[in-house]
Amino acid sequence: MAFKSFDELRAACQNLPAGSEASAQAVARRQDTLTKPQGSLGRLETIVAWLARWQGRDTPKLDHVKVIVFAGSHGVTAQGVSAFPSEVTVQMVANFAGGGAAINQLARVAGAELDVIPLEIYRQTDDFTQSVAMSEAEFLTAVSTGFDAVTKDTDLICFGEMGIGNTTPAAAIAAALFGGGAEKWTGRGTGVDDAGLKRKIVAIDKGLALHADAIADPLKIAAALGGRELAAILGATLAARQLGIPVLLDGFVCTAAVAPLAKLDSAGVAHTLAAHVSAEAGHRALLQALNLDPLLDLGMRLGEGSGACLAVNLVRSALECHTGMASFAEAGVSEK
Amino acid sequence: MAFKSFDELRAACQNLPAGSEASAQAVARRQDTLTKPQGSLGRLETIVAWLARWQGRDTPKLDHVKVIVFAGSHGVTAQGVSAFPSEVTVQMVANFAGGGAAINQLARVAGAELDVIPLEIYRQTDDFTQSVAMSEAEFLTAVSTGFDAVTKDTDLICFGEMGIGNTTPAAAIAAALFGGGAEKWTGRGTGVDDAGLKRKIVAIDKGLALHADAIADPLKIAAALGGRELAAILGATLAARQLGIPVLLDGFVCTAAVAPLAKLDSAGVAHTLAAHVSAEAGHRALLQALNLDPLLDLGMRLGEGSGACLAVNLVRSALECHTGMASFAEAGVSEK
Repeated sequence: MAFKSFDELRAACQNLPAGSEASAQAVARRQDTLTKPQGSLGRLETIVAWLARWQGRDTPKLDHVKVIVFAGSHGVTAQGVSAFPSEVTVQMVANFAGGGAAINQLARVAGAELDVIPLEIYRQTDDFTQSVAMSEAEFLTAVSTGFDAVTKDTDLICFGEMGIGNTTPAAAIAAALFGGGAEKWTGRGTGVDDAGLKRKIVAIDKGLALHADAIADPLKIAAALGGRELAAILGATLAARQLGIPVLLDGFVCTAAVAPLAKLDSAGVAHTLAAHVSAEAGHRALLQALNLDPLLDLGMRLGEGSGACLAVNLVRSALECHTGMASFAEAGVSEK
Repeated sequence: MAFKSFDELRAACQNLPAGSEASAQAVARRQDTLTKPQGSLGRLETIVAWLARWQGRDTPKLDHVKVIVFAGSHGVTAQGVSAFPSEVTVQMVANFAGGGAAINQLARVAGAELDVIPLEIYRQTDDFTQSVAMSEAEFLTAVSTGFDAVTKDTDLICFGEMGIGNTTPAAAIAAALFGGGAEKWTGRGTGVDDAGLKRKIVAIDKGLALHADAIADPLKIAAALGGRELAAILGATLAARQLGIPVLLDGFVCTAAVAPLAKLDSAGVAHTLAAHVSAEAGHRALLQALNLDPLLDLGMRLGEGSGACLAVNLVRSALECHTGMASFAEAGVSEK
């Protein structure tokens, strides 16, 4: 897919397939026959119905689980918004390739295949305090790359990101979409000190003022204030919806990346599940704004898709209970 | 081990091995060299330090993970405290053997070996509204059975329980140990209606009044108001401490079962980690009373060790990150 204009992409985002209510209902009916008090597996029960709805299968599968980490470089790092130097983005992509990052270990435990897609990591986006981060064409190229990275033979997908400085565009997008000012959405990312935090807020406020004309359009916001890896996640999440693949969302950056979808269609992120709430300041509020209830709350703030990947085995457990448990009748267990 | 008296068991509970501070420190030192912002894996980092401390290994292992489900039958079911008939306990033990219960599926996903140990399930404890649930000898037999079920070659252990009616003894123990009255600790268990909930509260209040003389002694409380599977979990958790095996706690019943250990020694459950907070009414308050911060909060209320087992892959993920990640130096990644 090569999206050619904001308008074309917007139309795609506003013409999303609905999930299968019939499959979700089939799951709910089976749940109530299994040897447990009704509802006693809590969210493990609703997770399976969610899988069924968005896979469009009465009996969901998890044979192919995938993690895609998108990496991008950010011009706004010139404003001193990160605790780490911007070359770490490139170094971490090498670390992913060498198997040494957290996401490599987490994907192995989750039984998930890991892809890493660098998005012109040697060429930073423009500094959004000076101009738009990406032109329409640059933004759409990144969205299209993300879109094409998702393949049909996938049963569940996690998106992750790497990009030194990228909690700044994430906070800027959140502030532009949901208001409340930079301060509400800005946190310490990889660990900036008080002065760094102040620089982030100043940079975001500057960006919001400079791109005030974009604020009515979620896609223009994502281009003006975002980053290539965020744009790719948006495109990939759109592709997943079209292909019937449920998505586990990672942390603050991933959630901000998909937030424009929710602004363009009130059910735009219904096929996603928030895997966790991160320790990054704005994430809890952003999940609330999107009506997403996170599965995990473990104080993580790494990105890379780490929180999403950690939740894969919760989803597997939910599905195995659903498919593997005996019914009351099969097991000869008395009912209530 | 055959504990011969309350006094002998109490002495064992008050003479617990400390964990290895050196191993916990070794883990913390390595964490800070790995390719991630310090602390960014949140509780995944502290989980590994906890494993190290209680395994007494600088590099913890998870080669042998075990789930033991203890089952018992409860005389207090005569008071109409459960939504299910008491024969379900025996039927569910058969369901475990046949592989049809939730815990069978969860243990498989967790890579854990599952043992089920029925404790005289054809012979109910006495109804604690009429007499002590168990005599000293009966209680100690159950404790000893639990103690002996734990074997040294285990790296992490989950305890679960099955026993129709057993949220009633659990709430009674919690009320006796921590006060606040029956109402504070009593929930709907497998799903009693309002009248059933009232019957539970009445039964517990009756038990608390009848056994008022036991309330100064945590072990006498566990015998007078508890159940065999709860006593076994107490014994097994004590054995795990002595053998250097960290324990994942399941829900309300398991937590109530080990609560006497915390009353007998302020660090008595330090080798346990609360895997989840259940939807059963009293569990959150009980975890708070024990200073335990649950890993998961998914609205589960099944028992069987289901919540504990679900957390095993979180612990595996934490350990794999710790052992598998590259350091900044190894990966050539720039530091802050």
